[in-house]
Order: sequence, then C-alpha cells, then structure tokens
Amino acid sequence: MRRAIELACRPKNSVLPNPLVGAVLTYRNTIIGQGFHRGPGHPHAEVEAIRDAERNSFRSFGQSCLYVSLEPCCHLDKRTPPCIPLILEEKIPQVIIAHRDPNKKVSGQGILQLKKAGVKVTEGYLEEEAALINQAYIKNQKHKLPYVSLKLAMTFDGKLANDKGDAHWITGPLARHQVHEQRAQADAIAIGSATIKMDDPQLNARLNKKSFKKKIVIFGAVKSLEKRKVTKANGLENIIIFSKMQKDLKAVLRKLYREHSIQHLYIEGGPNLASQFLEQKLVDECHLYYGRGFLGGKGVYSLGRSWGLKSMAESVKFQPQDAEILENDLHIYGRINVYWPHSKSRKA
Amino acid sequence: MRRAIELACRPKNSVLPNPLVGAVLTYRNTIIGQGFHRGPGHPHAEVEAIRDAERNSFRSFGQSCLYVSLEPCCHLDKRTPPCIPLILEEKIPQVIIAHRDPNKKVSGQGILQLKKAGVKVTEGYLEEEAALINQAYIKNQKHKLPYVSLKLAMTFDGKLANDKGDAHWITGPLARHQVHEQRAQADAIAIGSATIKMDDPQLNARLNKKSFKKKIVIFGAVKSLEKRKVTKANGLENIIIFSKMQKDLKAVLRKLYREHSIQHLYIEGGPNLASQFLEQKLVDECHLYYGRGFLGGKGVYSLGRSWGLKSMAESVKFQPQDAEILENDLHIYGRINVYWPHSKSRKA
Repeated sequence: MRRAIELACRPKNSVLPNPLVGAVLTYRNTIIGQGFHRGPGHPHAEVEAIRDAERNSFRSFGQSCLYVSLEPCCHLDKRTPPCIPLILEEKIPQVIIAHRDPNKKVSGQGILQLKKAGVKVTEGYLEEEAALINQAYIKNQKHKLPYVSLKLAMTFDGKLANDKGDAHWITGPLARHQVHEQRAQADAIAIGSATIKMDDPQLNARLNKKSFKKKIVIFGAVKSLEKRKVTKANGLENIIIFSKMQKDLKAVLRKLYREHSIQHLYIEGGPNLASQFLEQKLVDECHLYYGRGFLGGKGVYSLGRSWGLKSMAESVKFQPQDAEILENDLHIYGRINVYWPHSKSRKA
Repeated sequence: MRRAIELACRPKNSVLPNPLVGAVLTYRNTIIGQGFHRGPGHPHAEVEAIRDAERNSFRSFGQSCLYVSLEPCCHLDKRTPPCIPLILEEKIPQVIIAHRDPNKKVSGQGILQLKKAGVKVTEGYLEEEAALINQAYIKNQKHKLPYVSLKLAMTFDGKLANDKGDAHWITGPLARHQVHEQRAQADAIAIGSATIKMDDPQLNARLNKKSFKKKIVIFGAVKSLEKRKVTKANGLENIIIFSKMQKDLKAVLRKLYREHSIQHLYIEGGPNLASQFLEQKLVDECHLYYGRGFLGGKGVYSLGRSWGLKSMAESVKFQPQDAEILENDLHIYGRINVYWPHSKSRKA
C-alpha cells in the first residue's frame, strides 16, 4: 500500500477534479503490476496496474491481490469506464483499499459491489497517509469548496515587506522557482488589488522556459486592468474580479467552486488578503518562505494587523510538516485544516 | 579526520575556555585508537587516542599516523602537559591537522616543533568543518570577546509576545527543553530588566531533574533584585548588572570577557535587548523557535521596531543551517558571523 501511495503522488501537475490514486497488483506477496492515475481522461490506477502485469506476461489474476489507495469506482457518468467490472472480469479475488471515496456517487458502493461479487475486501489500510495526499479532492467532494493554499514570503522576523512596501526580493531564486511549481499545481491564483498596483506581477507559472496561464482571482478594483502584466500573461478571459473586498470569503470560495470550477486556490497575497483568509479560518495549508534575515521596522506589512486577538490561545494554529533550507532561505510546509474521507467517528 | 571531528563534538557541556578537539590514530589506514578532549583539566585528545591504542594492545607507533582536528599544543602554562613531547616520544612519524590553533601561544609553533623533529605534518584537511565546531573558541582567541548566541521564540508571523506582552507559551515543552540544553552549553545568560519584571524567570539550566546555576547578565535596573527568582536560582554572586542599557554593547562584551571570564553569552531577550545586539551586529548565531501559528496584532513585541532600515539590502543577514520540527514548533539554527582560525587570505 505504501508503494501504491507513492505511485499516486507521481503526477507533477494537478489531477483535479480527480483524486490521486495508485494501485499495486501482487501475486504471492510479489509485485507483478503497478500503476497510477495521470489525470482526467487517462486510465485509472487499477487499469494501469492490470495492464502493467499483462505487459509483465501475467495472464490470469485468480490468485492475485490488488492494493489501491482509494476505493475503486462504480459510477458511469464520466469519460473513463468504472473499475469494478474490470476487477470482476479479471477474477481478482482480493482487494485492499486505503480509504473509501468521499465522492457520494461511490462512497461505499464500490466496496459493496465487490463484496456482493464475492471479492474479499479490506479497507482502512494506511488510511491516514492516503487521505493526506488527496486533501484537495476530499475537501472538494465533502464540502464543495476549493482547497486553499497560502504562500507567504517574509523575513525571519515576520515582515512581508519593509515599511515602505518594498518586498523585492525577500527570497532567492530557489524559493521563487518553487512558487512557480506551486502555481502549476493549483488551478487559480488569488491576489489583492493593492499587490497588483504595487508589484504588477504576471502570476502565471513559468517552468522550464515555458509559461502556463492560470485563472486569476483579484480582490479589489484595478484601474486599466487590460494594461497590467497579469492580464497579458493569463488573458482577460481568465481573470475573475471581485471589485470590492468581500467580507464573507467562504461565500466567495463557494462561488469559485460552483461557477468557475476552481478546485484549488493558491493565495499569493498581499498581507491584507492573506490575513483575512487566515482570520476566517479558510486557509488549509501554507508554504512559508523566510528569507533576508532580520528587517525590523514597524511591521506595516505583517500579518493580522487588525486581528486584536485577546490571548495566545486564539492564534491561528499551524502544524509544520516539512522544513528545508534553500540557500539563505527557509521553506516550511504545514497544514491548518485536515480533511478525512468520512467522519472521524466512523473510524475504528 | 571526519571521525576526529565527530569525536571532538562528543562533550555535552561546554569545554571553554578550551577548544573541542578529536584525535584518531591509524595504522595502515585502520583506526587503532581514538579520543577527544573532555574539558579543562582532562587529558587532550591526542593523549586519549594514544592511550586508547595502548588499551587496544598497540605498543609502538613508529608506522602510525595521527589525525587531529586542531594543531597539537606546545605551551606549558596550563594544567595539562603539552602534546608535542608525547607525539615525539611515541615516535609517531606523521600528523595530519585540520587547522592551526588560533591561540597565539600555539599558532604554528606546534607544527614548527613537529617539523623540526622530522615529523611529516599536513595541515588544512577538513579545515572548514573543524573550524565550524569551534566558533566560540576561535572568536575568544582571535577577538578576546565572548561568542554570542541569541534565542528567540516567536509566532510564525514573527511576534515575540502578543500586544499586551504575554508570551506564555509561544513554544511547547520540546523547544523549552532545548533551551535548557543551550543554557547549559553557555556560561552566561543575558536578559533585559523588562523581561525580569514581566516574566520573573529563573534562567538556570534545568536538565534531568537537576538545576545548574548560570552567570546572569542583566541590562537595566531591577527593583528588589534579591526577591527575584533569577537571584534565588543562580545566587546573587552570579549576577552581573548593567543598571542602564548600554549603548556600546561591544564594550560590554569586552568587559564580560576580560573581567568575568565569560566566553559564551546566551541572550534570552526580551525584544529590545535582542534587537540591539542584532543591530550592532554582535550576534554570532541564532536559535529561532517558531510556534503558536499566526498571532497577528500590531507587533508591539517584535524585532527591530526602532531600526528604520532604508532598504532590504540593509537587513541583518542570517544563514539558516538546520531546521527541525518539534511537535507544533519549528527550530531553526543558523549563523550570522563565522570566524576562521586565520585570516581567510592565508587559505589556499
């Protein structure tokens, strides 16, 4: 199963609205086939694993076992055929599943169909690990909201810019390259109008000398938007604008999910937008980049200037998961919200 | 040599005013003896390595090679006898040294004595690695100043306390345990009077249910000092007080080194003291602890409120070296100043 989860993580770009899935087929505890889902329109991981075993000259699977990081699908309203009939057709006698599909059209139905056909099904194996790689998919399915990532680049003393608003550059090239990779993973970039006015950023993903357009969500009015780099880089048709700052950002997220099919929103700042998303507990994960040593000053551009929390206990909790040094900078990845494929109470 | 440097780092408590030293004795490229210096009054690493080889039943060293992370000593004004005569007596024909001793009484003299006696000497092997483990010793010897460590505990958005001054607790027990280990390594703790008034800390090192007194350097006047926990925990005789905040902190450091034999000063805050040491470029290394997620607020207690730097380029540079996650907190160790045993220009 660990191998299946590893395989699931292979795609470099987002596979949303689909989940990341990996599958491993074994015969007498030896791997005979493996596969993963490459994204919408591509075969599912289970199919890939079976085809791989066939390429490895295995012809019948009557004594094999299929490990799959997500419940196999049974619904028909999509481009690729469901996996259950294939599993039954190949007479695979045992299927081990990390967790149920949070998609209501599947959730438990796939397992039920397998069991009814006499397949031995085990679920809940490495469930947490598998759920953690599919946070965006699980949130999408369960809450009908985009998954929200926040990127912040600040000095080691927490300043997002100096007191005049200059943030060029807090971090070095390695950190900035990672940001382009993260933009590529998300399907929309959120930004405040003040940052557009001040920095005039492009906000597309630039990787390996190629540029990739992104959907851009702008909060606040921008004059002569058509002349801005963000418009030239991504196309006016890709820009969604909320001309006033919105008080209820959850309603905004709901709208972005429903009307614009945005499954994963990547917030780039500035401080005001980041602070509001954090305050409303709408950020799911953060990429924090610390650089430039200690800057000091009044912290005009720092987080939560208007929060006025009464005690330490009210702070917005953040769970660091990974830390790496990038030349003079530090990258910390961590989570604020974690989503599970089913209510925690159901878990053994 | 890598093994010698590893051995040198074994002592858990500071060996200052002595350097950390490790030594490895080899015969036909196989280690036959190894040792390290445990601190003032204990045998030197070279002696330990030779005695270790003898315990391993080696009786003559006429074909062996000695790797030592610091130039062997030749001066007589100390508790332990110099190592050069022992090396010559044991007829060790080859000595490989990471770097020269920055102590003026040795620097190059040890090497010269060995060479004069016909010993083949190589120097400069893994020089940087060896110098980095002895930063305090090198600074002491070359600049006659204590090595300065700064500990800061702040929220992920850089607040050292909330706007009312409450900092209890930004970090969790693992981080706080590390701080006690760091206090044990230093020979004095520096603190501002405001922090004593506000937090009334003990500032001793508490490890394994034992308490160790430290020298305490207080900046600013404290009323009824005798009633404070810091006095009870460390003894009035261990408290050095500068009743006014000093403008020239380098002069203070010089005085602490000369008059109080303080070789390694560990600054615990508050924000004002930390900011002044940083601004005057007197901090050599930092232990940054980030915890409690995002706190927001005006940042009344954050670094460098009065700095007013004109540009990003003027920030106090910080080079992160290590990052580790401690439950909900993050520990970053990094350097601001690096000291070399000789002027860089001499290096090949």
